[in-house]
Amino acid sequence: MSKNKIRPGVYLYPMPVSLIGTNVNGKPNFMALAWVNVVEFKPPIFAIASYETHHTNVGIKENRTFSINIPSEGMVEVTDYVGLVSGKDLDKSEVFEVFYGDLKTAPMITSAPVNMECKLLKRIAMKELTNTEKGHELFIGEVISAYADDSYIKNKIPDISKVKPFVYSIDNNYWKVGEHLGKAFSMGKNYKKG
Amino acid sequence: MSKNKIRPGVYLYPMPVSLIGTNVNGKPNFMALAWVNVVEFKPPIFAIASYETHHTNVGIKENRTFSINIPSEGMVEVTDYVGLVSGKDLDKSEVFEVFYGDLKTAPMITSAPVNMECKLLKRIAMKELTNTEKGHELFIGEVISAYADDSYIKNKIPDISKVKPFVYSIDNNYWKVGEHLGKAFSMGKNYKKG
Repeated sequence: MSKNKIRPGVYLYPMPVSLIGTNVNGKPNFMALAWVNVVEFKPPIFAIASYETHHTNVGIKENRTFSINIPSEGMVEVTDYVGLVSGKDLDKSEVFEVFYGDLKTAPMITSAPVNMECKLLKRIAMKELTNTEKGHELFIGEVISAYADDSYIKNKIPDISKVKPFVYSIDNNYWKVGEHLGKAFSMGKNYKKG
Repeated sequence: MSKNKIRPGVYLYPMPVSLIGTNVNGKPNFMALAWVNVVEFKPPIFAIASYETHHTNVGIKENRTFSINIPSEGMVEVTDYVGLVSGKDLDKSEVFEVFYGDLKTAPMITSAPVNMECKLLKRIAMKELTNTEKGHELFIGEVISAYADDSYIKNKIPDISKVKPFVYSIDNNYWKVGEHLGKAFSMGKNYKKG
């Protein structure tokens, strides 16, 4: 093994895939997003990063709400579609059947197995940290309510084997979740340095 | 399909798995972390969230540097091990063969296929947003240098099929990355609403 420098980059393998829902000028809009992360557990909080010119950013700043929807394998084509086309150029309000929850302004996707509606807590403009002219905005939002169909639930949470989410790799490919590897916070107990 | 409310939570399916490297009191320390996210591309920037009492947080605040290492399938047991045991209770400096790069204080794991060393740009204490007594800290760090062995590289970036990363689900399981589903920013062009 010999380590070589490669160009500095965002080599996270793999990334989750989400669909971010917002209302823009009163109409639902959705965007595919892999730059999504959990940042707190109690209360549940996410951070999502989206380029400042995106229609989604307009909606989040307009309503201070957004939704995170987890698509399943069968939704990969439509997920890619809403990632390709901007709400500025095309009205995406009819792409999905939509429902609203407690926050009233965060549209959620009925066909997505898991939906979370979030209230914006904080916005960080990355360009202020990097002294660049444009950049991504980091939106930190608290999950106010979460939704799933009973058919996806096991032990009170959505079951990954039923949800069938998929992942993204930075060479621009989508992949299924594969075989079970082991139990977390458990299998490490057996570790002995070789 | 009928949507039901479930308990608000961090239902991200699935999450990536990383190993965060820090120096604490001059000794390398590593922690498994799924709460890791890309937040900017140019320059490359990550956000990672770690509970404030973690040894890792001490190291990041001490040196203003940390590393993100992507483990492969074969490292799942040792990844879980360093996620189970705190550096406060056990010296983890001998668990991995370590190397240092340009930042000098961000230890990286030789056996991990991909390594990125990051310079801290900003820290956010989540408890200040939530009015709770304790909480996670969000560390925003720029990738200064990245490393990989030639054997993992294809078209100048690490190849997911060679890296063989794995993912985590919140029911505490690890999973392999599975079958190829399609080409991103491409397959959506064929989408027609049914």
